[in-house]
Amino acid sequence: MTALLWPGDARAGDLLGDAVVLVAMAEVEQAWVEALVAAGIAPPGAAVRLAELVTDVDAEVVAAGAEGTGTPVVPLVALLRERLGEAHPDAARWLHRWLTSQDVLDTALVLALRDAVQRVREELVAQVAALAGLVRSHRTTVMAGRTLTQHAVPVTLGLKAATWLVTVLDAADGVRALRWPVQLGGAAGTLAAPVELAARHGAADPVAVALDLVRRTASTLGLEAAPPWHTARAPLVRVADALVACTDAYGRIANDVLTLARPEIGELREPSAPGRGGSSTMPQKANPVLATLIRRAALSGPALAAQLHLAAAEAVDERSPGPWHAEWQPLQLLGRRTVVAAAQTTELLTGLHVDTGRMRSTLATATADLLAERRSLAEPAPGELAPDSDPDPDADPASYLGAADALVDAVLARADAVLRQEGEL
Amino acid sequence: MTALLWPGDARAGDLLGDAVVLVAMAEVEQAWVEALVAAGIAPPGAAVRLAELVTDVDAEVVAAGAEGTGTPVVPLVALLRERLGEAHPDAARWLHRWLTSQDVLDTALVLALRDAVQRVREELVAQVAALAGLVRSHRTTVMAGRTLTQHAVPVTLGLKAATWLVTVLDAADGVRALRWPVQLGGAAGTLAAPVELAARHGAADPVAVALDLVRRTASTLGLEAAPPWHTARAPLVRVADALVACTDAYGRIANDVLTLARPEIGELREPSAPGRGGSSTMPQKANPVLATLIRRAALSGPALAAQLHLAAAEAVDERSPGPWHAEWQPLQLLGRRTVVAAAQTTELLTGLHVDTGRMRSTLATATADLLAERRSLAEPAPGELAPDSDPDPDADPASYLGAADALVDAVLARADAVLRQEGEL
Amino acid sequence: MTALLWPGDARAGDLLGDAVVLVAMAEVEQAWVEALVAAGIAPPGAAVRLAELVTDVDAEVVAAGAEGTGTPVVPLVALLRERLGEAHPDAARWLHRWLTSQDVLDTALVLALRDAVQRVREELVAQVAALAGLVRSHRTTVMAGRTLTQHAVPVTLGLKAATWLVTVLDAADGVRALRWPVQLGGAAGTLAAPVELAARHGAADPVAVALDLVRRTASTLGLEAAPPWHTARAPLVRVADALVACTDAYGRIANDVLTLARPEIGELREPSAPGRGGSSTMPQKANPVLATLIRRAALSGPALAAQLHLAAAEAVDERSPGPWHAEWQPLQLLGRRTVVAAAQTTELLTGLHVDTGRMRSTLATATADLLAERRSLAEPAPGELAPDSDPDPDADPASYLGAADALVDAVLARADAVLRQEGEL
Amino acid sequence: MTALLWPGDARAGDLLGDAVVLVAMAEVEQAWVEALVAAGIAPPGAAVRLAELVTDVDAEVVAAGAEGTGTPVVPLVALLRERLGEAHPDAARWLHRWLTSQDVLDTALVLALRDAVQRVREELVAQVAALAGLVRSHRTTVMAGRTLTQHAVPVTLGLKAATWLVTVLDAADGVRALRWPVQLGGAAGTLAAPVELAARHGAADPVAVALDLVRRTASTLGLEAAPPWHTARAPLVRVADALVACTDAYGRIANDVLTLARPEIGELREPSAPGRGGSSTMPQKANPVLATLIRRAALSGPALAAQLHLAAAEAVDERSPGPWHAEWQPLQLLGRRTVVAAAQTTELLTGLHVDTGRMRSTLATATADLLAERRSLAEPAPGELAPDSDPDPDADPASYLGAADALVDAVLARADAVLRQEGEL
Repeated sequence: MTALLWPGDARAGDLLGDAVVLVAMAEVEQAWVEALVAAGIAPPGAAVRLAELVTDVDAEVVAAGAEGTGTPVVPLVALLRERLGEAHPDAARWLHRWLTSQDVLDTALVLALRDAVQRVREELVAQVAALAGLVRSHRTTVMAGRTLTQHAVPVTLGLKAATWLVTVLDAADGVRALRWPVQLGGAAGTLAAPVELAARHGAADPVAVALDLVRRTASTLGLEAAPPWHTARAPLVRVADALVACTDAYGRIANDVLTLARPEIGELREPSAPGRGGSSTMPQKANPVLATLIRRAALSGPALAAQLHLAAAEAVDERSPGPWHAEWQPLQLLGRRTVVAAAQTTELLTGLHVDTGRMRSTLATATADLLAERRSLAEPAPGELAPDSDPDPDADPASYLGAADALVDAVLARADAVLRQEGEL
Repeated sequence: MTALLWPGDARAGDLLGDAVVLVAMAEVEQAWVEALVAAGIAPPGAAVRLAELVTDVDAEVVAAGAEGTGTPVVPLVALLRERLGEAHPDAARWLHRWLTSQDVLDTALVLALRDAVQRVREELVAQVAALAGLVRSHRTTVMAGRTLTQHAVPVTLGLKAATWLVTVLDAADGVRALRWPVQLGGAAGTLAAPVELAARHGAADPVAVALDLVRRTASTLGLEAAPPWHTARAPLVRVADALVACTDAYGRIANDVLTLARPEIGELREPSAPGRGGSSTMPQKANPVLATLIRRAALSGPALAAQLHLAAAEAVDERSPGPWHAEWQPLQLLGRRTVVAAAQTTELLTGLHVDTGRMRSTLATATADLLAERRSLAEPAPGELAPDSDPDPDADPASYLGAADALVDAVLARADAVLRQEGEL
Repeated sequence: MTALLWPGDARAGDLLGDAVVLVAMAEVEQAWVEALVAAGIAPPGAAVRLAELVTDVDAEVVAAGAEGTGTPVVPLVALLRERLGEAHPDAARWLHRWLTSQDVLDTALVLALRDAVQRVREELVAQVAALAGLVRSHRTTVMAGRTLTQHAVPVTLGLKAATWLVTVLDAADGVRALRWPVQLGGAAGTLAAPVELAARHGAADPVAVALDLVRRTASTLGLEAAPPWHTARAPLVRVADALVACTDAYGRIANDVLTLARPEIGELREPSAPGRGGSSTMPQKANPVLATLIRRAALSGPALAAQLHLAAAEAVDERSPGPWHAEWQPLQLLGRRTVVAAAQTTELLTGLHVDTGRMRSTLATATADLLAERRSLAEPAPGELAPDSDPDPDADPASYLGAADALVDAVLARADAVLRQEGEL
Repeated sequence: MTALLWPGDARAGDLLGDAVVLVAMAEVEQAWVEALVAAGIAPPGAAVRLAELVTDVDAEVVAAGAEGTGTPVVPLVALLRERLGEAHPDAARWLHRWLTSQDVLDTALVLALRDAVQRVREELVAQVAALAGLVRSHRTTVMAGRTLTQHAVPVTLGLKAATWLVTVLDAADGVRALRWPVQLGGAAGTLAAPVELAARHGAADPVAVALDLVRRTASTLGLEAAPPWHTARAPLVRVADALVACTDAYGRIANDVLTLARPEIGELREPSAPGRGGSSTMPQKANPVLATLIRRAALSGPALAAQLHLAAAEAVDERSPGPWHAEWQPLQLLGRRTVVAAAQTTELLTGLHVDTGRMRSTLATATADLLAERRSLAEPAPGELAPDSDPDPDADPASYLGAADALVDAVLARADAVLRQEGEL
C-alpha cells in the first residue's frame, strides 16, 4: 500500500500501514485475553493467536465497515469472531471481553507507532554516526559562511555539519525519551467491567485483579502500564512532537544541500544512484531529489503535529466526539513520512559529495567580503593590540575561524555519548 | 483502497484515489498525443487509449518507482511504453513528447479534483434542498437560543437551520466559482519543446501551433486553457480554500447536532441506521456517529488548506524543490475527506430527528431566562410606549422572536436561487 | 503601537491597531443610534459623535476591562456613557440600545479590516503596474530557467516576472471580490430587541422597522446589509483567505529574489536605502532585508488563515464559546502583516535591480545544460524535420524560448484589464 | 500594552511585552561587556547598567527603526550609544563588541521566555494543588460518565478531575524539563570576533578566552552555556511545544466546564466575580467566561507552536532569511497567551462550583443507561459467577465504579511527588 502521491513512501514498508495497525489491534485483543487466562478468569482455550487470523486484504473489509461505530474495532472483532468460528468457541466468546474500542485502537496505535519510531531511532543513530564522520573529515575544510543569503565570515564544513549534528542530536533526545504506555480503561476509564468480571470469578480484591490485567497486557505487548489516558492525550502528542522534531532537523539539512548544490555554488552534491534525479525531458538534469523530498516532509510535519495538539486541546467528557477520531490518520501519516525522511536523510548524509575545489573557489572570490568583519576590528579599542598583521583582502580565510574547532569538539563529544549509549561505539 | 483510520472513507469510493490519479495522468498523456495528431505533427497511430492500459494494481508499482525522479510520472511513462510495446510503435515513440512531469501531474490532479468537487457540489445542492425543507418545516418551531452555552433569547429551529443554510450556501458559492485550468508549460513554462517540435514540422507559426496544442488538450480534457501556473499555485490553493469552506460549514452544523443530541438536551437526534452509533460494550448507546465523523473532518481541514498556501508561498524558480511535492497528498486527503463529510452531512440533514417536545420542555424550564432581555426593555426610554402587556416570566417565548421569520425568508430566497441555477427547482 | 518583534510593522501605521478598532466600535454604536434617531425612535439628542470621545490611551483601559464579559464592548460602552455624562443624557441612555456585543465587535472588525484591505488593494494595483513595467522592460532579457534548483531551459526575465504577476493578479482577484457586510442580529440573531423597541414606538410593522435599522446602519458605515452571520463566519474567513493569498504571492516573489540575489548568482538585487541591509558587525553586508521580511510574512500567513477556518468550523449555538474569541487577534495580525508585506513588496518591485551582465554570465557558463533538452530533440521522430541547424552546446539560449513572448502578452493583457478597472490605465 | 482583542491579556502584565524584551536585549549587551571587563579585555568603565537606560516608550522608537536591518538590535544599540554619550565613552565604545544581532535577540528572547515560563510553572503548581484537592474532595461524588456526548457508565468527579490532573501533570513535566541556554556565536557561529579580540589582548589561548566569555555571560544572565544554536532551533521549539502542552491541558479542562455548565446539565459552574460573565443586553446571563477564554487559547496554541517548528525546519545557511524572523512574534504571543490561560485556569479550578444535586439528578434519570453495560455482563461466560445481585435499572450507579478509587490514588501520588519537589508539600 505505497502512496502514489508521496514518492519514497515505499521506504516505510508496512510500518504503520493499515495492515499493520489491523494486526496490532488483533494483538491487543489477544494480549488482553491472555491476561484473562493467566488470571484464571478465562479458560485456556480462549487464548488463540489472533494476529494470524487477519490478512492484508482484511484492512479493506474492516475499513469499509468502520463508519457505523466510528472505529475499525467493531468490524474487526466481528471478523475475528467469525474466523474463530465453532473451532474456538471459548476464544470467540471471550474476545474483546471487556475492552472498549478506544482501549484497542489507542493501544494498537501505540504499538504501531513504537515500531515506526524504533526505525526512526535507528536512522537517527546512523545519522549521528555519519555526521560525526563528516565533521571529523572536514574539520579543516574552510568554506564561506552565509547569513541572510550573503557571505558573512568563514566557517568550516566541519562546523556546518556540526550544527546539522546538533539538530539531529536534539531530535534524537526527544525520540529516545518517548515512553509507550497501554491505554486501557474500559467504557469511561474506570475499568468497571474488568472489576465486575473479576468479582464474578470470586476474586477477593477485584480491583487489584483488574489493575493486574492491565499490567499483564502491557507486559505482553512490551508497553508500560499506566492509568487510562483516554482524554489526556499527551502520550500521543509527545510522539508527534518528537517526530516533527526529526523532520525539522532533516529539513534544516536538506535546505543547506539544496542551496549548496545549486550549480552556481556547487559545493555539495547528493549521492547519485541509478535513475535518480533525472528529468522526464531534460537529459542533463541531476536534481537533488533526496533533499527535495526531505524538505517536502519538513514542510508538512508541523501541521500534522499541530493536529494532535488540537485534538488534545479539544478533548471533552470521557471520550471526545471528533477530536479523538481526528488523531489517527495524522499519526499514521506523520509516522510513515518521518520514517521515509529519516531513511532518505541517512542516505543523503552517508553519500554526500563534498566539492572542496568549489568551496575554495568561492572563498577565493569572496575573501574580501568574508574578512570584512575582521578588517573592521583593525582599529583597536583602547587596550587592544593592533592586529598581528594587517588583515587584508587577500588574507587567508582559514585564519579567521574563531572557536570553530573547539565548538566542533563539544558537539562530537555529545554525539559520541549518544553512540556509546546506543551501542554504536 | 479505503483508509482504515478514516472511518467513512468508503463513501469517497475511488474519487481522487491513487488508481484514479494514475488514470488521470494517462488521460493527460493521451490528450496531448491526440492534440499532436490533430495538429498533424504525430502520426494517427500515436493516439491510443492509454487509460485502459493501466489498472488498479499499477498504482502500487508506479508508486514504488516514484522516488528516483520524485514524481510518479516517469515510472508511469515507462510502464505505458512497455505495454504499448511493439504493437503500437508510434504511440510508444510519441508518448510524453514533449511534456514535462509537472504538466502531467498538475493537470491530472486538476482532473481528479474536479471529479471529487463535482461530487461535493451535488451534495451541497442536496444539502441546500434538505435545509430549505427543514427551515420551512420548522419556521414556527420555537426553541431556546443559546450563547456562550447559556440560554439567551428564543429562536426558531427554522432560524437556526437558516444559519446552517447560510454556511452551506457560502460554501457552495466558493465551490461553484472554481475554475479548472490545464497546467502545460514544458520544462520551465516556456513551451519550448512543443514550439521546437512544431517548427520541425514546418509550421509557419510554431508558437501558435504550441498554444493550440494546449487549447486542444484542455478541450479534450474538459478543462480551461491557461498560461502555465507551475509556480503560481492559486488554482490549487483556491480548490483547497473552497473545500475547507465546506468542512467549516459541516463542522458548524455537526457541533449543533452534537450539543443538542446530548441526553440532557435531547432536542435533535441523528438518523438511525442498522449498526450505527453502537458501542463495543454499552448496548444502550446511540452515539451521534455522523456528527462525530463530520466534526473530525472539520477539525482537520484548516491545516490541510494551510499546507497548500504554504506550498504556494514557498514557491521558487521555475519548479519548487519540496513545496510542489508537498501539495499532492494534502490535496488528495482534503478532497476525499470533504466528499466523505459532504455525504455524511447530507444524510445527517435528510434524516435529522427533531424532538419538538424536548424543545418545549426546555422552553418551559427556561422561559424566565429567555425573556430576561425583554423584561429589561420594560422600563421605557423617553418616547417609548410601555410594553403592551407586562412581560412576565410566564409569557410565551414565541412572542419574542423578532425578525426571525423575515430573516428566514431572505435565506430561503438565496437558497431557491441556487437550487434554480442548479436545475433543482 | 508598533510591534517590536515584527520589523516593518510601522508601515501599517494605525491600520487595524487597537485604537482604530476601538474607534470603529464607537462608530458602530453611533451609526446604530443615528438609525434609531432617523427612524424616529430615539430623540435627536441621542446622536452624538462618539468616535471623538475615545482616544488612543483608552484602548489600554478598555482592554484591561475586557475580561469580565470576554469582549471589549462592555467596558467601552461604560466609558462612553461616563464621558457622555450629564451633558448628553439622551445619548447616554440610548447608547448600545439594543445591540449585543457581538454586533458591535464583528461590525467594527469588518470596518477596520476593510480599511486595511483597501490599503492592500492599492499596493496590489501598484504591484501590477510595477510588474507590468518589469515584464515589458525584460521581455527579451534571457536568463537561465531553474527547476529543482538546477539549470533547466532558458527563460526570460519578462516571463519570470509574468509568473510573479500572475500570482499578484490572482491575489488581487480575491481581494477585489471581497464584500463587507454588517453583522447585526442582537442577542441571538433574531433582532428581537429592535423589533420590540419599534413596537413600543407604535410602528405598524416593527419587523420592517428593525430591518430598516440594519440597512440604515450599514449604509452609514458604508457596509452592505446582510442577515446576521453570528455563527456563519464565511465573511471573515474569506477576508483571511484573500489576505493570505497576497502573502502567498509576495512570498513566491521574495523567494526568487532571495535566491537570485545570492552572491554566487547575483542576477537580482534589492533596492538599496540608507541603513538598509546592514549588519551589526559585518560592514560589507547588503542583506536582502525586504525579501527576508516578506518571506517571513509568507511563512506566517497560512496558519493565521487556518485559525479563522478553525473558528468557523467549531462554531456552535448562537454564539460560540471560544471559537469566536479566537478570531479577533489573528485577523488583526494577518491584516497588519499583509499591509506591511504589501508595502515592502511594492518597494521591492519598484526598485529591483536587474544585473543583465550576471544573467549573461550564467547563460554563458550553462548553455550546454540549458540546451540539453533541445539537443535531445535532435533525433527526429518520424515525420519530423531534422533541426534547422544542428543544435550545439554553443548555440544561443535565446533561440530556445518557445512561446515565452506570447505567454507574456496574455499575462500583460490581464494586468492591463485590472489596471483599467482600477483607473490606473 | 494590553491587547484589546485578547481579553484577559492584562493578566500577563509586562511578561514578554515589547518593553521587557527591549530591556532583556540591554541586559544581554551588558552581561557581555561585563564578561569582557572581567576577562580584562574591556576597561572597567565599559560596564554600565544598560537596562536602566531604556524605558517603556523606547520600544516604540526602536520598533520603528527595526526594518532597516530586519531586527531591533541595531536601533537599540544606536539608542544606547547615544544615551551613554560622552559620559561613558568606554561603555559606548565597547557596547555590542563583538556580538551579532542574533546573539542579542535570541538570548533576550530566552530570558523573556524564561520569566514567562516561570510564571506558568507557578500556576501549574497551583493547579496541581487545586486539582489534588478537588480529587480528594470528590473521590466519592458519583456522576454520569459521558462518551461521544452520550451517557456511558458512572464515574466520579474525583476521577474526572484526576484526568484533568494528568493533563496538567503531563504539561508540568514538559515545562519543568525546559533548559535555558544562551545563544552566542557571533556573525556565523564561530565566535571569530571574540577570539580575534582576545588574541589582540595577548591571550595565550584566545579560543579558551572566547568560550569563557560565553560562560561568564551565561552565568551573569542565569542561563546555561551552550554551543551556538543559530540554525538549530530546538531550544525555542521545545519551549513552544511545552507551552502549547499547557494550553492543550487547559482546553481539555475548559471543555468539560463549558459542557457541564450548560443549563440543561448544570453540574459545574465557574467561580463568580463582580462583572464577570454578564451580557451587554441579557441581565440573566452568567456566561462561563473563564472557560470560554481558556478554550480560545487552546484553539490558538497549536498553530503558534507549528510556526516555530516550521521556522526550524526551513532554517538554512548560518542565518535564515525569513524563518528566523518568523519566530519572534509567535513566541511572544504564545508565551503571553499561555500565562493568561494559566492564570485563568488556576482561578477556574480554585473556585469551581460543584453542584452535587444536579449530578444526582442526572444519575437518577440516567441510571438505566449508565448500568446497561453492567446488565450486559449478566449472562455469565463459562466459569463466571452469576452477578451477586441481579443488576437492575434501579441499582445504585455507585456500585459500578470499577477501579476509579485506585486510579485516583495513582494520580494523586504523582501529583504529590511534584508538589513535594516544588516545595509545596
